[in-house]
Amino acid sequence: MSNRIPRSRDNDYTREMAEARRQFLKEQTGNGLKHAGQYSFDPSMLPGNIEHFIGVAQVPIGVAGPLLVNGEYARGEFYIPLATTEGTLVASYNRGMKLLRESGGVTTTISDDAMQRAPAFVFKSAREAREFGLWVKENFGELKRRAEATTQVGRLRNIEQYSASRFLFLRFNFTTGDAAGQNMVGKATKAACDWIRSVYPGLENYYLESNFATDKKSSRINILHTRGKRVTAEARIPGRLIEELMHTSVDAIYRARQVLNLGGMLAGVNNNGNHSPNGIAAMFIATGQDVANVVEASAAVVHSELAPQGDFYYSITIPSLIVATYGGGTGLATQRECLELLGCYGRGGVRKFAEIVAATILCGELSLGTAVIAEEWVASHDKYGRNRP
Amino acid sequence: MSNRIPRSRDNDYTREMAEARRQFLKEQTGNGLKHAGQYSFDPSMLPGNIEHFIGVAQVPIGVAGPLLVNGEYARGEFYIPLATTEGTLVASYNRGMKLLRESGGVTTTISDDAMQRAPAFVFKSAREAREFGLWVKENFGELKRRAEATTQVGRLRNIEQYSASRFLFLRFNFTTGDAAGQNMVGKATKAACDWIRSVYPGLENYYLESNFATDKKSSRINILHTRGKRVTAEARIPGRLIEELMHTSVDAIYRARQVLNLGGMLAGVNNNGNHSPNGIAAMFIATGQDVANVVEASAAVVHSELAPQGDFYYSITIPSLIVATYGGGTGLATQRECLELLGCYGRGGVRKFAEIVAATILCGELSLGTAVIAEEWVASHDKYGRNRP
Amino acid sequence: MSNRIPRSRDNDYTREMAEARRQFLKEQTGNGLKHAGQYSFDPSMLPGNIEHFIGVAQVPIGVAGPLLVNGEYARGEFYIPLATTEGTLVASYNRGMKLLRESGGVTTTISDDAMQRAPAFVFKSAREAREFGLWVKENFGELKRRAEATTQVGRLRNIEQYSASRFLFLRFNFTTGDAAGQNMVGKATKAACDWIRSVYPGLENYYLESNFATDKKSSRINILHTRGKRVTAEARIPGRLIEELMHTSVDAIYRARQVLNLGGMLAGVNNNGNHSPNGIAAMFIATGQDVANVVEASAAVVHSELAPQGDFYYSITIPSLIVATYGGGTGLATQRECLELLGCYGRGGVRKFAEIVAATILCGELSLGTAVIAEEWVASHDKYGRNRP
Amino acid sequence: MSNRIPRSRDNDYTREMAEARRQFLKEQTGNGLKHAGQYSFDPSMLPGNIEHFIGVAQVPIGVAGPLLVNGEYARGEFYIPLATTEGTLVASYNRGMKLLRESGGVTTTISDDAMQRAPAFVFKSAREAREFGLWVKENFGELKRRAEATTQVGRLRNIEQYSASRFLFLRFNFTTGDAAGQNMVGKATKAACDWIRSVYPGLENYYLESNFATDKKSSRINILHTRGKRVTAEARIPGRLIEELMHTSVDAIYRARQVLNLGGMLAGVNNNGNHSPNGIAAMFIATGQDVANVVEASAAVVHSELAPQGDFYYSITIPSLIVATYGGGTGLATQRECLELLGCYGRGGVRKFAEIVAATILCGELSLGTAVIAEEWVASHDKYGRNRP
Repeated sequence: MSNRIPRSRDNDYTREMAEARRQFLKEQTGNGLKHAGQYSFDPSMLPGNIEHFIGVAQVPIGVAGPLLVNGEYARGEFYIPLATTEGTLVASYNRGMKLLRESGGVTTTISDDAMQRAPAFVFKSAREAREFGLWVKENFGELKRRAEATTQVGRLRNIEQYSASRFLFLRFNFTTGDAAGQNMVGKATKAACDWIRSVYPGLENYYLESNFATDKKSSRINILHTRGKRVTAEARIPGRLIEELMHTSVDAIYRARQVLNLGGMLAGVNNNGNHSPNGIAAMFIATGQDVANVVEASAAVVHSELAPQGDFYYSITIPSLIVATYGGGTGLATQRECLELLGCYGRGGVRKFAEIVAATILCGELSLGTAVIAEEWVASHDKYGRNRP
Repeated sequence: MSNRIPRSRDNDYTREMAEARRQFLKEQTGNGLKHAGQYSFDPSMLPGNIEHFIGVAQVPIGVAGPLLVNGEYARGEFYIPLATTEGTLVASYNRGMKLLRESGGVTTTISDDAMQRAPAFVFKSAREAREFGLWVKENFGELKRRAEATTQVGRLRNIEQYSASRFLFLRFNFTTGDAAGQNMVGKATKAACDWIRSVYPGLENYYLESNFATDKKSSRINILHTRGKRVTAEARIPGRLIEELMHTSVDAIYRARQVLNLGGMLAGVNNNGNHSPNGIAAMFIATGQDVANVVEASAAVVHSELAPQGDFYYSITIPSLIVATYGGGTGLATQRECLELLGCYGRGGVRKFAEIVAATILCGELSLGTAVIAEEWVASHDKYGRNRP
Repeated sequence: MSNRIPRSRDNDYTREMAEARRQFLKEQTGNGLKHAGQYSFDPSMLPGNIEHFIGVAQVPIGVAGPLLVNGEYARGEFYIPLATTEGTLVASYNRGMKLLRESGGVTTTISDDAMQRAPAFVFKSAREAREFGLWVKENFGELKRRAEATTQVGRLRNIEQYSASRFLFLRFNFTTGDAAGQNMVGKATKAACDWIRSVYPGLENYYLESNFATDKKSSRINILHTRGKRVTAEARIPGRLIEELMHTSVDAIYRARQVLNLGGMLAGVNNNGNHSPNGIAAMFIATGQDVANVVEASAAVVHSELAPQGDFYYSITIPSLIVATYGGGTGLATQRECLELLGCYGRGGVRKFAEIVAATILCGELSLGTAVIAEEWVASHDKYGRNRP
Repeated sequence: MSNRIPRSRDNDYTREMAEARRQFLKEQTGNGLKHAGQYSFDPSMLPGNIEHFIGVAQVPIGVAGPLLVNGEYARGEFYIPLATTEGTLVASYNRGMKLLRESGGVTTTISDDAMQRAPAFVFKSAREAREFGLWVKENFGELKRRAEATTQVGRLRNIEQYSASRFLFLRFNFTTGDAAGQNMVGKATKAACDWIRSVYPGLENYYLESNFATDKKSSRINILHTRGKRVTAEARIPGRLIEELMHTSVDAIYRARQVLNLGGMLAGVNNNGNHSPNGIAAMFIATGQDVANVVEASAAVVHSELAPQGDFYYSITIPSLIVATYGGGTGLATQRECLELLGCYGRGGVRKFAEIVAATILCGELSLGTAVIAEEWVASHDKYGRNRP
């Protein structure tokens, strides 16, 4: 018996081929993936999303809301689909949404928007690398033309330069419409680089990837300079509501925030908030985002203040929120439904979606933050999360 | 019409209630989540995993393999389920598995294993905080007894101490059996802290959460001191295979590695490798892990060397791989199947699973790393990822 | 004419040899270093501190104080010698000392004390590295004996372990009495490592230096785990005094602190305070410390709070303050005088000195911090620092 | 007896006033600072450099060289004055200078040059902060005019923008001629900010200092974006010379470099080299630099390669080397002599000086690096550093 996974030359994306592979796995391992084999869509929609398709993970979705957003693109009430297996998560976000709804909603702002690829160029010495940097500035127009020739949507906005040793690192910043755009910018940057290689003398080598775009990683450069959308969600919450709904006080939350800031600064953390990746991962799975991008999106900057009249000002800035409402997994069956639930599917929806994600996250931050302080956190996990040891 | 999400007092986890909520959403938004409403399991298994259940995200699973692992717990060939919507991913990991299979397999080692909760204790001044640190050392036995009284599985291994200002941060390190254990250790640590509060004079306050365990965040402290499993996957690959299968050379990979190290050091990245979170997220979704933990797991340390006889030594250490084969989402329908496919479901499987994850990741690192160098990367995304703009 | 710097075989540390070298430099460059050639001590005291001696840098010393310290080792009023060429510095620290003197003084606490050397050990694979870690724990007693045999003062306190790939990094923590101890611990650690190499099978190589002690560098590991002394200086300052003496308010300082915390978190800074290295460098030069250690000492954690009754609580923790009152440059002519001025010269003085440094730093933090807010900062630099463009 | 430090209203910068203060200190502490009272210059040159002058620290200077530099500003052989009390330091740098002299010298390149002040601006919400960012771009010309009106030398090059929460951080980048320029840019930035405050509606507050310039601190932002000069020193060293002079091999150095890179990445270090701050601090003290700037200058990026023909390529990039040859302490007696020894004193010398510093540092890196590997390090400290326990 061959140990080679079956594959069809003609049409690999059929229920039959998926079944054949599950059968093969049953022979190899004894497990035939009965549940995974049950899915409601036609596999012919899958090319471009998966290879060696065998079935689906059925990830439970809960709904929270309504979430009240005062954004520039998202305005009004939304019901948020959260795909997770972590008990308490939906209930906790829902609780936060109630607090912020009664407080007047969450204000959201997208401050920046860029997707990167960052090649490294190697020269004989630092001096040649520096000269190349000047050349790049002078030839930005042609580089832009070469890069954009490969894409209908992507636009080269600017090129940042960083240097060390005999290397020059170029960070190409693109706008990518409603797509996340990682592949688009890879292709466009490669076209620009290949042109450079063909015309620039003295270039020893170039590397398309240099850890300066930091795809699927958390980095200081992305916290400073944005990857995807840079979104801030803010709210001003009356102290009375914190007492009534969250059973704690503005002062208590504020003091706890200072402890988290201090601890986080010492521990060298990429996020001084509570648990933003929980909500982000759940929304990403539900809506067909590239889930590994939760890593970039895990960076967060929380800032809170004691506001006048006993209110509490709370904000979270997510500097690298990579999202799409077009392409990738967004068009798959359940994923598209969840985007449609938010009114975000397809072209024109991506900024609205980014604002909804950020607003959702702010609700979760307040909910967990206050639960920990009110010492309800362990108790609520006992109640809702009994499957979670 | 109320905008309140329907909820049943008697039994919220039924197909009817899920349907009622979808109907409610249809009324509110126009979208009834037809596909999401199709799932193959009985919702009565869901309490502890989700609230406000409405259906499922159907995330496509592809299979890669066989992966050859020379671990201490995982030994032999495995077929790896990867739940993703990112085209190319399964094909790329599969390609790396072939390379490493022909190279003799991946050696895996778990070097450390701990789950944390890290409260902060506030005193009148730094001096009182320091004295408390001595008391904690002297009273470790009683703290351990109090913490472990709350759990059948968790064991308090040691308590790290960190200090600044008038604060002492205690990082409680537990072993948690085959569960991920975040809630278990939260409860256990709270019991110890409550006891401290009841007996220790001069304590001004304590905070159960202080950003020193850095749950769902990437941090230097977890890179240094481990959260979950610290796993290393290593292999020695003959240069001949790199040329035949990957169409590049040991020297070319090695030089590219140096560029990634240099760029990563400058950019302040938490991972000097290629894209480990891609494979981790896909395995986590397939097997019912807490997907937000891909953030901690995104940290990685890659080290490679030119080995004798033209071989290439390549290793990746994942310092914070949080996984479970028991509890959480691991028992759900498709998730359990995927763990069973690997022979890891339930008690006794967690270290085997951690080794398989790490071995998988090494394959993906080599596959993407060589594709970028061989300049096949953009081309292969054009071929496999046509849905991904 | 030879371009070789003159050197005497018999006695290189004489006024004549210094003069001969200055004469040589005059011939080579035209500059005979007239002022540098004027010093008040006998060069025969210099072996062990300098090679190719030609004279001295005359660095102006200003005195600030009295500084009121409520330490465990330093108690009472001190006059602080600050060697600097930066106008405003002495005046600014002096201003802060007045504020804190009238506030009741600075409370200082040393929370930890260790000097490190951190070798790396290389094995065939991660598994062998892990086994070695167990062996190190079992053989701590013998390692301690071997290390301590090389020194009369140094004591091996504990060995931290860190791992990645096929490496185990050991961070040897010593106490070193009143010396800074970098060389002492290098020698002691080497003795332990050489013994390991002679008895432990399977060790491929070891490196005495691995960037895990981070000598003369700023690092997260030293912020977390201390290098030298970990000292906190704290004070509670009446709001009235801040208004009278600093012309600003507790609220204004506090708000400014939040901005510095936020900015510093984003910028990835090793110190969220104002300018602690200014005072540290000035004290280090005056008292014969190894001035490059200002790099480790530059890390700082500032925490402030609005305290009851309108007071302001302000603290700074310096996690890596490397100081000596014995050995190194401490016994040189002017350097010893400055240590004697503080009552810290020689054996038994090092903790007292560390407390005085930290207390001084707190005064400087408050003085600059309030000056910036009161918008007196630019004006005062115009007044005092006219040489500084 | 008053405990107040004596001060003259008429002329505080006289030998008599310094003597009066030493006398006061003798009465207060018993120590009259006999040696510190011996200095060769007229105190009337000191205003702008020190307050409460009492005398000088006499810091021994040793000379190393000749250093062979192939820079754009520094060309030829130089003798380097190093003010230190750390035995072995001068000898070690001298040894490295010999190696690199025989290798053909050190190539130096300044890639960037900027001095910053970075104020924070606070608005009602993130949206207003973003709008302000657009306004700043549109009004750059006027901001530049307002800033430059305060200085004859400083030129505003560009303004970087960073955002989080309701804050916009502006990083003003100036060129500052031959001065270090920290005060110059503070004054110029304040003028621009005061104008903003007077004309821009909706600004809640601004803070001149926000930890985004990171004066006297080590930060990621300065590693990425330069503060002072960004200088690279490079060399290609024949393997034969490493064997003859350093008693080790290219392969051994290279392997050790990989260990330092790996360890440094884990430890979170701001410098993957050996000990660059040693040489920097010694040159800074000798030449009247602001010594606390050794903190910024401590950041370093070392990159090495195995070059063709058995050579070793070694480079160090110092991203934040803040130096001056004019103003500050550069004009004091011994300090000016040391700058003149290098042909760098006064206007027009600063880039030459920056290159000489970087070239010196490269020599020290190779010397210590090879000594550690050749296991001569502990032995040489025993020989030269007997005063250093």
